[in-house]
Amino acid sequence: MKSFNTRLSDIIHKKESHLCIGLDMNPEGLSTPDSTLDDLKSHAYKVIDATRDLAAAYKPNLAFFERWGSAGFKWLEETMEYFGDDVIIIGDAKRGDIGNTAKQYAHSLFNHFGFDAVTLSPYMGHDSISPFTMNPEKGAFILCRTSNPSAVDLQNQPIGDELLFDKTAQLAVVWNGKDNVGLVVGATAPKEISRIRKQAPGLPFLIPGIGAQGGDLAISMIDGNTNGVALINISRSINFAGDLSESAIRLAAKEYVEKMHEIMN
Amino acid sequence: MKSFNTRLSDIIHKKESHLCIGLDMNPEGLSTPDSTLDDLKSHAYKVIDATRDLAAAYKPNLAFFERWGSAGFKWLEETMEYFGDDVIIIGDAKRGDIGNTAKQYAHSLFNHFGFDAVTLSPYMGHDSISPFTMNPEKGAFILCRTSNPSAVDLQNQPIGDELLFDKTAQLAVVWNGKDNVGLVVGATAPKEISRIRKQAPGLPFLIPGIGAQGGDLAISMIDGNTNGVALINISRSINFAGDLSESAIRLAAKEYVEKMHEIMN
Repeated sequence: MKSFNTRLSDIIHKKESHLCIGLDMNPEGLSTPDSTLDDLKSHAYKVIDATRDLAAAYKPNLAFFERWGSAGFKWLEETMEYFGDDVIIIGDAKRGDIGNTAKQYAHSLFNHFGFDAVTLSPYMGHDSISPFTMNPEKGAFILCRTSNPSAVDLQNQPIGDELLFDKTAQLAVVWNGKDNVGLVVGATAPKEISRIRKQAPGLPFLIPGIGAQGGDLAISMIDGNTNGVALINISRSINFAGDLSESAIRLAAKEYVEKMHEIMN
Repeated sequence: MKSFNTRLSDIIHKKESHLCIGLDMNPEGLSTPDSTLDDLKSHAYKVIDATRDLAAAYKPNLAFFERWGSAGFKWLEETMEYFGDDVIIIGDAKRGDIGNTAKQYAHSLFNHFGFDAVTLSPYMGHDSISPFTMNPEKGAFILCRTSNPSAVDLQNQPIGDELLFDKTAQLAVVWNGKDNVGLVVGATAPKEISRIRKQAPGLPFLIPGIGAQGGDLAISMIDGNTNGVALINISRSINFAGDLSESAIRLAAKEYVEKMHEIMN
């Protein structure tokens, strides 16, 4: 029984890949103007087939399933069966609620859907996180400094000499009693990756914001993988690469993995 | 075409009720030890039948549906058809994600499920909120000072002479350009209700924490309804009242409505 953080680190080293593919199946991503759920379902399987050996992790984004209601959740259930074993599956859910409700979300994401880890919002504090960290084999990536332009509204509020996201990083270290807590740190704020790393040595980073959002891959890789491991999440630039064929998707994923190898060597 | 905040205020006055019933269909709430989804479905309909004329709003908590996966979402779709028109339906989802993802969640909650309003986490800032506030007829309650014990972890971090939740209240006022933004303020921190009200006059408050969580009803009603309206959310103490019969549930709801009238007179 490995802890989540150890298992994640082992898979990254075994597959020699830091790539996390964000499965954001946006209906606007396909060339057909009125994409159906079936079109997106086929496309998601194509992305998985094209990249299974290249990705250390997949990160299905629940919003893109929920927008179809129960049919979308049925699709998510089917997709969860399709990934195979040798990969980490992160439920990008950004949940955060009082204890008795968080317990239900944890049941949903870990027991019902079978995710290995989830993303969570820290705004409600420890008792909104703890139901997700009770089992050391399951992981929780806490939103710390996110990749979106408005991240600064709250996250960069000054607290003495620090910023709010510094406090989040420090709290996450405290919450990591079972070696299964990580942080979401956006590649669009590259200077802040090393700053956060100093406060949270050893915690895995999930770094979104590369590709469509314009984040910095080199700094993300170097600073994210110093004193800990980093997963680099790519969504749109792989899911909807080139002519949307399996080979175009594979090529895009392969190029990202190679770029990451070059940066680290 | 009324804005959400105006419609909410009108319904509260017309029905002479500040009661919001939180539909948290916890399997542990029923007396049968292994409650099935069908048991909970019947029970939820019983709660709605017993209270439809008493409640200004219902607040289905998505976690308690999601824990059953696609079958739970099918149940939520069916439940949404059951409420009738003369009531506000708030999706307690506490979502919060980057813009293109928030757009999908807004589609899910407003267009697919048909909620009148949602609860949202402010941690990711304005662009995570704005997809939910574009339509003035749909509302967004922003988590400000929540009712759980760990709320203080982040929300009470000091920012100059203020606390983080003050900043959230101030931001929500800025985000309320279309008269459709409100705040979630817990009854378990009664002193903070008037403090937040001063910073956000006119914004509706959604106040959880009464009943099982032990919040203060009198202060919530008086301070919450000064310079704005407040919905008082009750979940467990109504859903699972007495012997779980329709009459026991109705009695519990009626007693809360009467207590609120007494406080205001």
